[in-house]
Amino acid sequence: MSDSPFISGAIKKAVGPRLREDNDRIVVEEPLELRLGRTPIAVTMRTPGEDRELAAGFLLTEGIIRKFSDIVAITGPVRSLPNVVSIKLRRGLRFRRDRLMRHFYATSSCGLCGKTTLEAIRVKTQPISGHFTVPVEIIYSLPDHLREAQATFDETGGLHAAALFDERGKMLFLREDVGRHNAVDKLIGATLMQNGLPLDHCILLVSGRASFEILQKALVARIAVVAAVSAPSSLAVALARKFRMTLVGFLRGESCNIYAGAERIDS
Amino acid sequence: MSDSPFISGAIKKAVGPRLREDNDRIVVEEPLELRLGRTPIAVTMRTPGEDRELAAGFLLTEGIIRKFSDIVAITGPVRSLPNVVSIKLRRGLRFRRDRLMRHFYATSSCGLCGKTTLEAIRVKTQPISGHFTVPVEIIYSLPDHLREAQATFDETGGLHAAALFDERGKMLFLREDVGRHNAVDKLIGATLMQNGLPLDHCILLVSGRASFEILQKALVARIAVVAAVSAPSSLAVALARKFRMTLVGFLRGESCNIYAGAERIDS
Repeated sequence: MSDSPFISGAIKKAVGPRLREDNDRIVVEEPLELRLGRTPIAVTMRTPGEDRELAAGFLLTEGIIRKFSDIVAITGPVRSLPNVVSIKLRRGLRFRRDRLMRHFYATSSCGLCGKTTLEAIRVKTQPISGHFTVPVEIIYSLPDHLREAQATFDETGGLHAAALFDERGKMLFLREDVGRHNAVDKLIGATLMQNGLPLDHCILLVSGRASFEILQKALVARIAVVAAVSAPSSLAVALARKFRMTLVGFLRGESCNIYAGAERIDS
Repeated sequence: MSDSPFISGAIKKAVGPRLREDNDRIVVEEPLELRLGRTPIAVTMRTPGEDRELAAGFLLTEGIIRKFSDIVAITGPVRSLPNVVSIKLRRGLRFRRDRLMRHFYATSSCGLCGKTTLEAIRVKTQPISGHFTVPVEIIYSLPDHLREAQATFDETGGLHAAALFDERGKMLFLREDVGRHNAVDKLIGATLMQNGLPLDHCILLVSGRASFEILQKALVARIAVVAAVSAPSSLAVALARKFRMTLVGFLRGESCNIYAGAERIDS
């Protein structure tokens, strides 16, 4: 129930030929179970803290809710159940269990890959049509803001970070987690729970790589611009192009690669 | 069906205030569906290539098979179904679908955390009892061997790598994937399919962080020593200590942290 994302523990430190006793801070990873009422619907390995935001963000990005008012109550974790959050949805909102199941157990035609393969886009949605632009200098400035705000990342190297910026490069939210998808869900859940600001003029920055899953979550939250410090995957690029998102990768110093939606980046 | 883990694509490259056309290699991420007979049992986002090894390794590390001879046939992918591998298990081997389901939909007491929480260890197993030791100099040498052998990692930064070494530091197998758990499953599947050598005197090296999931897979494959270039999580450390595995993190140059099982590391 502690909100600290770290524990401290005795380790051995090896430097050259010598081993000595030492102490190390270790990032906490524990399972979180999400329940709808009393029914478990998902388990994710996450860093404890902001678990309700994680739950709300997960429900949105997995297509179970469309707005925060779809949630009537969100309870937990409590001391006796430190790794459980329960959600009550508004009456009449049908929860389609198969949406979650599909992730593991589905076959169908995948429009994205253009092949008879697996369903890749789990949540049906429209392309993003926002027509704002961001100067490339603002894109360059984002990782520095992230690093300044990250209390903890550099110290352990064990946490992924996700941050949301407005179109002028002002940081709105920052969340960290042992799982990169959880950091994004916590971030999106925070916006949902606090004021539900429209995100279509926002920029999402992730500290690592940009996978398909990250792009899909950003798409459902209607975030137009996603930037990553490291590499994107082919399916992340394909999704960004299909849904008219902007995808920036290898954002380091005064350079980056723009994989999709370059019309939103002003040079 | 191409075995190349990359595609090449037109991008915009921004350097300072200038944007120009460029080409970039992008690591391929596509869903792979595993079927038992005709029944889909799991989908993972993976880099195509060595899909049968991935399937075999996944079945082992998820506790569905115990040895390669539990598999009668392993087919696919084929051109018409490029992202599907089908497995036929030997007659009499009962597939417990709930083992996979549990990952998403289970509650029970978790002995690992000592709390009434979620089931964290999905596969029941014994501690690892092997009593070999490795000189710390051999541990230090592993990342260099990995980098030398990695054809592709440095070029795109998009792939995780996992490598298996013998106790003298000789590399036995190397596998890469967009998903770190897939790289480990491919590696373990390769050992299963090629000669099933006992792994209890082997060292697993992963290029990134050591999560609970990675340690769990190593445990099921009976790998006694796991080393990671980056940080471990708290649950990875807890699992290693509980099952008497050796866990090394922050393995960089001539230093590392030993989080569990230091008795296997000789200084």
